[in-house]
Amino acid sequence: MTNSTHEFTDDARNRDILISVNGELFPRDKAVVSVFDSGFILGDGVWEGLRLHAGGITFLRAHIERLYEGARAIDMDIGIDPDDLVARIFACLEANAMTDGVHIRLMVTRGVKATPYQDPRATITPATIVIIPEYKTPKLEVIERGMRLITVHVRRGAPDVQDQKLNSHSKLNCITACIQATKAGADEALMLDPLGFVATCNSTHFFIVRRGEVWTSTGQYCIPGITRSAVIRVCRDNGIPVFERQFSLYDVYGAEEAFVTGSFAGLAAVREVDGRPLSHPLTRHPQWQGPGPMVKRLTALYQDLARREAARHL
Amino acid sequence: MTNSTHEFTDDARNRDILISVNGELFPRDKAVVSVFDSGFILGDGVWEGLRLHAGGITFLRAHIERLYEGARAIDMDIGIDPDDLVARIFACLEANAMTDGVHIRLMVTRGVKATPYQDPRATITPATIVIIPEYKTPKLEVIERGMRLITVHVRRGAPDVQDQKLNSHSKLNCITACIQATKAGADEALMLDPLGFVATCNSTHFFIVRRGEVWTSTGQYCIPGITRSAVIRVCRDNGIPVFERQFSLYDVYGAEEAFVTGSFAGLAAVREVDGRPLSHPLTRHPQWQGPGPMVKRLTALYQDLARREAARHL
Amino acid sequence: MTNSTHEFTDDARNRDILISVNGELFPRDKAVVSVFDSGFILGDGVWEGLRLHAGGITFLRAHIERLYEGARAIDMDIGIDPDDLVARIFACLEANAMTDGVHIRLMVTRGVKATPYQDPRATITPATIVIIPEYKTPKLEVIERGMRLITVHVRRGAPDVQDQKLNSHSKLNCITACIQATKAGADEALMLDPLGFVATCNSTHFFIVRRGEVWTSTGQYCIPGITRSAVIRVCRDNGIPVFERQFSLYDVYGAEEAFVTGSFAGLAAVREVDGRPLSHPLTRHPQWQGPGPMVKRLTALYQDLARREAARHL
Amino acid sequence: MTNSTHEFTDDARNRDILISVNGELFPRDKAVVSVFDSGFILGDGVWEGLRLHAGGITFLRAHIERLYEGARAIDMDIGIDPDDLVARIFACLEANAMTDGVHIRLMVTRGVKATPYQDPRATITPATIVIIPEYKTPKLEVIERGMRLITVHVRRGAPDVQDQKLNSHSKLNCITACIQATKAGADEALMLDPLGFVATCNSTHFFIVRRGEVWTSTGQYCIPGITRSAVIRVCRDNGIPVFERQFSLYDVYGAEEAFVTGSFAGLAAVREVDGRPLSHPLTRHPQWQGPGPMVKRLTALYQDLARREAARHL
Amino acid sequence: MTNSTHEFTDDARNRDILISVNGELFPRDKAVVSVFDSGFILGDGVWEGLRLHAGGITFLRAHIERLYEGARAIDMDIGIDPDDLVARIFACLEANAMTDGVHIRLMVTRGVKATPYQDPRATITPATIVIIPEYKTPKLEVIERGMRLITVHVRRGAPDVQDQKLNSHSKLNCITACIQATKAGADEALMLDPLGFVATCNSTHFFIVRRGEVWTSTGQYCIPGITRSAVIRVCRDNGIPVFERQFSLYDVYGAEEAFVTGSFAGLAAVREVDGRPLSHPLTRHPQWQGPGPMVKRLTALYQDLARREAARHL
Amino acid sequence: MTNSTHEFTDDARNRDILISVNGELFPRDKAVVSVFDSGFILGDGVWEGLRLHAGGITFLRAHIERLYEGARAIDMDIGIDPDDLVARIFACLEANAMTDGVHIRLMVTRGVKATPYQDPRATITPATIVIIPEYKTPKLEVIERGMRLITVHVRRGAPDVQDQKLNSHSKLNCITACIQATKAGADEALMLDPLGFVATCNSTHFFIVRRGEVWTSTGQYCIPGITRSAVIRVCRDNGIPVFERQFSLYDVYGAEEAFVTGSFAGLAAVREVDGRPLSHPLTRHPQWQGPGPMVKRLTALYQDLARREAARHL
Repeated sequence: MTNSTHEFTDDARNRDILISVNGELFPRDKAVVSVFDSGFILGDGVWEGLRLHAGGITFLRAHIERLYEGARAIDMDIGIDPDDLVARIFACLEANAMTDGVHIRLMVTRGVKATPYQDPRATITPATIVIIPEYKTPKLEVIERGMRLITVHVRRGAPDVQDQKLNSHSKLNCITACIQATKAGADEALMLDPLGFVATCNSTHFFIVRRGEVWTSTGQYCIPGITRSAVIRVCRDNGIPVFERQFSLYDVYGAEEAFVTGSFAGLAAVREVDGRPLSHPLTRHPQWQGPGPMVKRLTALYQDLARREAARHL
Repeated sequence: MTNSTHEFTDDARNRDILISVNGELFPRDKAVVSVFDSGFILGDGVWEGLRLHAGGITFLRAHIERLYEGARAIDMDIGIDPDDLVARIFACLEANAMTDGVHIRLMVTRGVKATPYQDPRATITPATIVIIPEYKTPKLEVIERGMRLITVHVRRGAPDVQDQKLNSHSKLNCITACIQATKAGADEALMLDPLGFVATCNSTHFFIVRRGEVWTSTGQYCIPGITRSAVIRVCRDNGIPVFERQFSLYDVYGAEEAFVTGSFAGLAAVREVDGRPLSHPLTRHPQWQGPGPMVKRLTALYQDLARREAARHL
Repeated sequence: MTNSTHEFTDDARNRDILISVNGELFPRDKAVVSVFDSGFILGDGVWEGLRLHAGGITFLRAHIERLYEGARAIDMDIGIDPDDLVARIFACLEANAMTDGVHIRLMVTRGVKATPYQDPRATITPATIVIIPEYKTPKLEVIERGMRLITVHVRRGAPDVQDQKLNSHSKLNCITACIQATKAGADEALMLDPLGFVATCNSTHFFIVRRGEVWTSTGQYCIPGITRSAVIRVCRDNGIPVFERQFSLYDVYGAEEAFVTGSFAGLAAVREVDGRPLSHPLTRHPQWQGPGPMVKRLTALYQDLARREAARHL
Repeated sequence: MTNSTHEFTDDARNRDILISVNGELFPRDKAVVSVFDSGFILGDGVWEGLRLHAGGITFLRAHIERLYEGARAIDMDIGIDPDDLVARIFACLEANAMTDGVHIRLMVTRGVKATPYQDPRATITPATIVIIPEYKTPKLEVIERGMRLITVHVRRGAPDVQDQKLNSHSKLNCITACIQATKAGADEALMLDPLGFVATCNSTHFFIVRRGEVWTSTGQYCIPGITRSAVIRVCRDNGIPVFERQFSLYDVYGAEEAFVTGSFAGLAAVREVDGRPLSHPLTRHPQWQGPGPMVKRLTALYQDLARREAARHL
Repeated sequence: MTNSTHEFTDDARNRDILISVNGELFPRDKAVVSVFDSGFILGDGVWEGLRLHAGGITFLRAHIERLYEGARAIDMDIGIDPDDLVARIFACLEANAMTDGVHIRLMVTRGVKATPYQDPRATITPATIVIIPEYKTPKLEVIERGMRLITVHVRRGAPDVQDQKLNSHSKLNCITACIQATKAGADEALMLDPLGFVATCNSTHFFIVRRGEVWTSTGQYCIPGITRSAVIRVCRDNGIPVFERQFSLYDVYGAEEAFVTGSFAGLAAVREVDGRPLSHPLTRHPQWQGPGPMVKRLTALYQDLARREAARHL
Repeated sequence: MTNSTHEFTDDARNRDILISVNGELFPRDKAVVSVFDSGFILGDGVWEGLRLHAGGITFLRAHIERLYEGARAIDMDIGIDPDDLVARIFACLEANAMTDGVHIRLMVTRGVKATPYQDPRATITPATIVIIPEYKTPKLEVIERGMRLITVHVRRGAPDVQDQKLNSHSKLNCITACIQATKAGADEALMLDPLGFVATCNSTHFFIVRRGEVWTSTGQYCIPGITRSAVIRVCRDNGIPVFERQFSLYDVYGAEEAFVTGSFAGLAAVREVDGRPLSHPLTRHPQWQGPGPMVKRLTALYQDLARREAARHL
């Protein structure tokens, strides 16, 4: 369907999963929310994408902390304690007998409204908590092929409008960026910040490799990515120079390598941006030969870290 | 619950309404959408608030045209023809035996996803169409009391991020503005545009009256309000000077009157902005004495127009 | 001292003027305010420059209304009624036996502080009202010579910082622009708005004449100039096309004529901007030959209006 | 009067203080400046708030250097040497027999004008130098209570308009922010920068504590605070991670602690911002229990440093 | 080669044209400029694209006036009088025996440098004047096919950087926009202004038709297009509502028709923008059926005007 | 002619130099490009200024890498390998028998067009490569005199318009800044970035020295200067604190020293900015006494590094 790393194998097992809605388990076609739900009417909620590995959830505490921090930013009470929330996730996984290769969507919205109106005081139930676990694995051939990005006119916006650090249910900004990339024949949209510098991709974080250094944006115009943060950490732990900094497309077009990160696929190499193949500027006639040496090294380091950081408790 | 004009009487009749979901009618507690719905997961949809008057819907064609235009902006196919959509609305109203005093929420989202992912190509059903009709009438005493606005730091954003002309399900920007106004003890938030000029309120449009002229913002940072447009039209039809223009809080603080507009309450007078009572600057010790002469005149003219413009067909 | 139109003749009569401070009259060297005054400590006040003509004050009501509107914008109570304030001005003029050729500085600050602190609640007296009337007449030779403007890097700012419509005692923005123009050898600074379009000059308003049309800025980044407004009015009354609009230096450099306006000097012709002499672009080797035909015509029309609009009462 | 830390005890001793105006000493009600003073007419000056401790002035050299640097930024000649200025301050303190618990307002304006006009060349005297020493001590109960901040729409502006690094007499920007906070029932206004990130408070500097780290803004949109700088220094000297960086309200709402700093009160804890109590996001039902551990530790470290850094000479 | 309207027939007659360089005529391969020319080294010049029709040049005076106005904006002396420049153009056309169907590139750069350095004072010759006349006619099939536009991330910039009203030799901004459109498979790039509103296309001006009205941008971020101006004029002369106004992509996606204009091809219809076919929003399943009724009407009106406005003298 | 450091001695040897155009050598007056060249018509190219020292080119690899990186940014194929390009440069130098004291302008444009049109696909030849070597040495007396800078209204722009990191042939932005500085009587223009902070000078990079630290801008709004980079490197290598950071004119006016850098003159001291002499703020009556101690030290360190880094091969 799509040619991005998010392309999923239609794993037959997903037809029969049980989904947790406010603590109760439902089969896929019975997992519903009210049409008065704040999430449906208003995009009023926060969410996490979690990865189950060998029975533990990778970077569990970081995900849960980000969820609660996001809830506070929108002045929403999640209603249950973090430990109880984690317990509820694992209860759902156990009911599905899942232990590995699973991607979990954890969503919390402000609850059901008395009537469709934006004021939080019109909410008449506690927060709605939905947990969807699915078997999903990134396709290897997509990763080998390399992603093609296009810079789109749709921007990441200012923090005084909708803070880009918030991982919310109000996703139209990213969706319209995604649409534009599709129209232009690319796999993913590269998005600029309000000043015209590189911010992030529509559903992943973006890194470049320049003269042996690893650069990503300042982080002011994207969610505080957990895979992003893990990549920075493995760089630091392994003596690879890494910088969160402002940079422009000039720096991207002249990079040796680039890659995107996300909870789902980890790292995925980028082969070209705006039709310009990535390679050192002194290289002539560059040809895509698969992920470069830095992407390969960081992928191995990241996977190792992710394995070590899978947990069942905060 | 809230002291804004959106405060609603808990009309007992609303407990037993029938809600249309994809053309089928459900009682209130059975009206649901999948947890995979694009609206719930991503705020990916557009909506209208319609007002039923004497069997017709006020400004029906303008509402339907705006809905289809919004769908096109986000490259979403509503899936049924405008005439069929109108028929579905009236079918729902008839099933409820409703003819007047009813507010209708018409919502269209991109449909159900194969998996929770933002790419529109991950959608596996046609658009989800939900119609919620409720008995709702603005409380007179709220209107008499006059609204208190506070200018908030939360801004309307740039069109290249999320076009403010789009009336979407991704409403977090307005919700955080609403929260800030509540924290500051006000009824509604006055929001500025990216340049610091007056844009609009969080759930209504904003007008001021200065030296006998009626001013509203340029319209570049708010949805193309249908009540707003009707007020402009009655001004023009009645020789009242009216301007869509850039203006700042300086102009607001020195205005004689101000009011907000919306499909629900029509016009509602504003008594103060940022703690400054509104009256001509040469008036000393101004006291709130109810809606001013221009608000009263425009209210009458608007109600007359709204009555004339209620329709059952495009 | 300065080569702008504000250059003043050291009129010997000004040595013995009486100045009104809070309603009492003092000779020049006894006219003082407390070091705790909000004006001195914080620039917390608003003011007007008025022109006495044949016993009346030109555009009196407009000036007084602007003063009270400015006070409301900063939530300051002037403390006395507009009529009483006007009476106080004329009492001061009469004590000085002044009837013509006089420029009056009318200043209102928030009053004396208990201690030097910015919170208005630290103020312990009513507003301070100072009225300084001086004999001042623009020098004819300066007007004949034509003004030289330079565009400076100091900008007029956004309304959410300090609204440029406010004529306040916090004037450092204009002062630093004035300093820059002086350093560059020009008479007055042309200032841009936050988007880089032409806003206004540091102490006057700016107009250009292009292909027979008169253009000035939108008015969003300057005080609502009363002479500016009068020039627009005489254009409209006499069939001269006039526009308040956004324009850039490209439009200025290609203008046939330009001029500045102010309460003190009325209109003053501009001979060059950024070292480019002003004349129709198809004119080669332009030479300054005094104010152009439009400036002359508007000056006559303005002076006629100003004479007619001098008043002693609101 | 006010509920901020700037609230002062009406110390009876302040009624009889001597104030230095241009080197001469005057009792409180005789300490005046001309109505032609650049400070009064135009807010054209720079100032410092100094703290007398055990006979020395805390961070004396930093304050004097900042004053002279500010004067240079506005191209103003203070007229006397730094050493002479310091001598004048201590002469004033000695005349008042003050040695401790004293707050000193040191103000320098461009001097008296020939006529009220903004051009510095219209100034006819040397700079006006005013020194006001007052007994003032922050109220302990206010500090224990914790401050309530609200983010306001009034912004810190761009450096090309009025450089926020300048501590000037043109304070309307901060005053209007202060007014807005008061209207919203808060103690102090939190102000954003032109990009929507956190800048500073209206009369204090702002810090947050996140995951054991201390963050304050980049410093580009506030005066180069001397207490702010001292806090950074004690962090560095004591191995506490401290960062001057760009951050948004998302980071504030999720902070464990926050505090403001100023020459007057040193550090003061913040209990809530925009109605959101501050505590670690994984804490549920947070209750204010007085200043947190980091604020307490930094307060002690700061006070120790301030004591050591009080001086009588540059 | 390209699929835009600028695609040209390789007219064999163009091989033998004579080109005017500083008044002398040269065959195509001998028409050269020094490597020290300001145009080559720095893009320091202004130009016009003129259309020869029946022996006259369409809108001749407007083109020449714009050229001289542009020269003034960059403080460049063209060196010869407008009448002499026109004579030189016609001398070149006569030497080529051209009377119709010819497109003329008229270029003026600042002249030859002593050494490659940007300061205009390093120029040692008068301006370089080059006139290239070529037989070129827009291909009908391209116009019938309709243009596909894509909105690109490359923006039109602020007037304080490089005024977009200037038609200069420094064209990299437009070239990079053109490259991005090509990479995305479109015919021409739609470019936004610094605020995110629609500015113009990379080499043409852009119009939309909405509810029977014709809209184009404010003109602040594009050259003052002569064909653009002619289209506005024919609208006004024929009672078609036309507006130069701020609008966003929302308005574009919901337009009935769109078209671009330029001196070369006049008007050319747009069939889709960002992959969204243009048609009234209430139209379902829109199909391209050639230029719409408004484009056809305006094309006829424009061609008629252009024919009437071809001249040989200013 | 000019009083900047770029002022050149009219070295008689330059009359007879050979210039390389596409690999062929021509005397000065025969070195030409087609009027259809992309450089001449559109400013479509990139260039380097190289310095020959003792037979090698200073920082050769950095220059060549920047050239190829710039070409990639504008999606232009230089057409020959880096090594071949270097060989071509040295062939030209050898033909001129040059070994030292030579400044080389290396220019690459997109090649000759079929017709004057901006689309890169209209180009019909490989890239045009021009190499101009000239004897040029900065005048000592200019360096001793100290440069006078003025901050101009012309800004460095956003990266989404024309990336300031690109050293292109589209130089009108810098040229108009240069013109403004000349009109104001200064040697070079100091340019701000879009936010109003200090960016760079029109043809050089800008540094200040504050309290013993060396500051330059973040580098986001200027070309990645090679001399700039060398200065940073010698600071780091010699324990001199150096920062690439955001700063404003406030910081400049209060700096002890300032200097500009470029490939031609290395370092040149600045004596004043905006008419304010540079010196420590506590210094009264500062007098220019030649380059300060930091400029002298860095000049020596830089020259030493430059000598060591001259090369003949990549």
